[in-house]
Amino acid sequence: MNERIFEHDNQVVRRFFALDTQTYKSGALDLKTKELLGLVASLVLRCDDCISYHIAQCRDAGVDRNEFFEAFSVGLVVGGSIVIPHLRRAVDFLDRLEAE
Amino acid sequence: MNERIFEHDNQVVRRFFALDTQTYKSGALDLKTKELLGLVASLVLRCDDCISYHIAQCRDAGVDRNEFFEAFSVGLVVGGSIVIPHLRRAVDFLDRLEAE
Amino acid sequence: MNERIFEHDNQVVRRFFALDTQTYKSGALDLKTKELLGLVASLVLRCDDCISYHIAQCRDAGVDRNEFFEAFSVGLVVGGSIVIPHLRRAVDFLDRLEAE
Amino acid sequence: MNERIFEHDNQVVRRFFALDTQTYKSGALDLKTKELLGLVASLVLRCDDCISYHIAQCRDAGVDRNEFFEAFSVGLVVGGSIVIPHLRRAVDFLDRLEAE
Amino acid sequence: MNERIFEHDNQVVRRFFALDTQTYKSGALDLKTKELLGLVASLVLRCDDCISYHIAQCRDAGVDRNEFFEAFSVGLVVGGSIVIPHLRRAVDFLDRLEAE
Amino acid sequence: MNERIFEHDNQVVRRFFALDTQTYKSGALDLKTKELLGLVASLVLRCDDCISYHIAQCRDAGVDRNEFFEAFSVGLVVGGSIVIPHLRRAVDFLDRLEAE
Repeated sequence: MNERIFEHDNQVVRRFFALDTQTYKSGALDLKTKELLGLVASLVLRCDDCISYHIAQCRDAGVDRNEFFEAFSVGLVVGGSIVIPHLRRAVDFLDRLEAE
Repeated sequence: MNERIFEHDNQVVRRFFALDTQTYKSGALDLKTKELLGLVASLVLRCDDCISYHIAQCRDAGVDRNEFFEAFSVGLVVGGSIVIPHLRRAVDFLDRLEAE
Repeated sequence: MNERIFEHDNQVVRRFFALDTQTYKSGALDLKTKELLGLVASLVLRCDDCISYHIAQCRDAGVDRNEFFEAFSVGLVVGGSIVIPHLRRAVDFLDRLEAE
Repeated sequence: MNERIFEHDNQVVRRFFALDTQTYKSGALDLKTKELLGLVASLVLRCDDCISYHIAQCRDAGVDRNEFFEAFSVGLVVGGSIVIPHLRRAVDFLDRLEAE
Repeated sequence: MNERIFEHDNQVVRRFFALDTQTYKSGALDLKTKELLGLVASLVLRCDDCISYHIAQCRDAGVDRNEFFEAFSVGLVVGGSIVIPHLRRAVDFLDRLEAE
Repeated sequence: MNERIFEHDNQVVRRFFALDTQTYKSGALDLKTKELLGLVASLVLRCDDCISYHIAQCRDAGVDRNEFFEAFSVGLVVGGSIVIPHLRRAVDFLDRLEAE
């Protein structure tokens, strides 16, 4: 789907996507920490696709189940019970990733 | 101000505050990482008081200026330009903390 | 799904769920009023699962169709036209509940 | 300030303000319940001016301190810790109203 | 679905829908500009149904693909990367509209 | 304040600010339309600083008072009554700009 977005020659959109990729590169903060930041930001803003994406990235970066649940707990307490349906889908997505 | 909130005997409110404190205790994720999670969540939800609070906590937990700016960059890219005024106040708050 | 969340021994998450349950217990405000508060909060925050949950709870607490629509009208006016798709799904859910 | 808004002859804006007033009229739900709905909606959307407005309206409608705190607790649990600074200002506003 | 909402005789809800229709009528700003405003507001508030609706309205008002992508770019930069999944669905919806 | 942000050599933050500037350049949509899009996006996301900024930019781009109020009306209807306090401050800011 990103390819269809890039087919259209809009420089602001393209640069935004490049910047988004650059944001999570290891730097003063390591990749794992940055992906956890992306995950919790996605949880409190309640975007399921973003949550799934960052769960997969976090897992590749070595985040274990205890760490995931602590990150989830921050998202839940900051964002409130409105986050619960997204937390359910997040845990379901994580379970399926681990089952593969 | 919290004291005036606690003066009133509402158990849900009191327990929420206790839970909020418990959330950032060191566990599978260390204190520094958890405070960074709280900071970025506050940035994307655009709450100046919460941002200042977590900047102070992060600083006590040893977050340095490069790490702060990388956390800010995640908040900015996830949350968009609407975050910019809050980022300005965040940097101003951090500058004043460091000047003390 | 909640059971799979509770299987993981994260005390903050578990306590949050317990607190969430406690919040809607009858007290100074009765159950019906509290569930209506939960419904309108869910409407303006635009969470379909939360809206459906509170509609079912409100119905069990005796909220009738006129009362539902007045609660919907508060959510719609406070939250704006962005609430409309969620209102449609809310009315559809209520219709199906009443048809059972 | 509303007067300066109405000075400008924009019918959509004027009608919206009229509709906003109509929304809280007593109907199937009484005034007190509707104002509590407006208060909790304002809390979870984190608008201080709206919160203060509905606290004053609720108080005129006979909401007592225990009821206020139960409404606050719903807003806090649904909306999360990001609501805390607004809750502080809400309690401060309520204290000042009661001190008058 | 709107018909089932209107079946219920709630005047606030009905008036809100009438006001919503009136909002996008050509006036000092033309229809095309107003629909673009509705589209970008829907993007940053991340409501897929609203985005699709305004894309269809914009297309009827003569918005071309370059204009769509510039409107998308404003929504993306203001709203941040959290908008990306909605942008993907927006482009997919636009592609399907154009393929018809 | 932006200068103090740029003093710190964080490339993601700098590029985001550059991209933000680029977003509003005249292209398929003219400057005036793009600034109106930024204004309405800021209204529905309820950021006073962003609203004031885009009001000033719109005014420089030739937006007149009738056009401002029509843009305000879109923001108000999409975003709901929670936008009202921001609309008041927007009209106040516009009045002061025009009085200069």
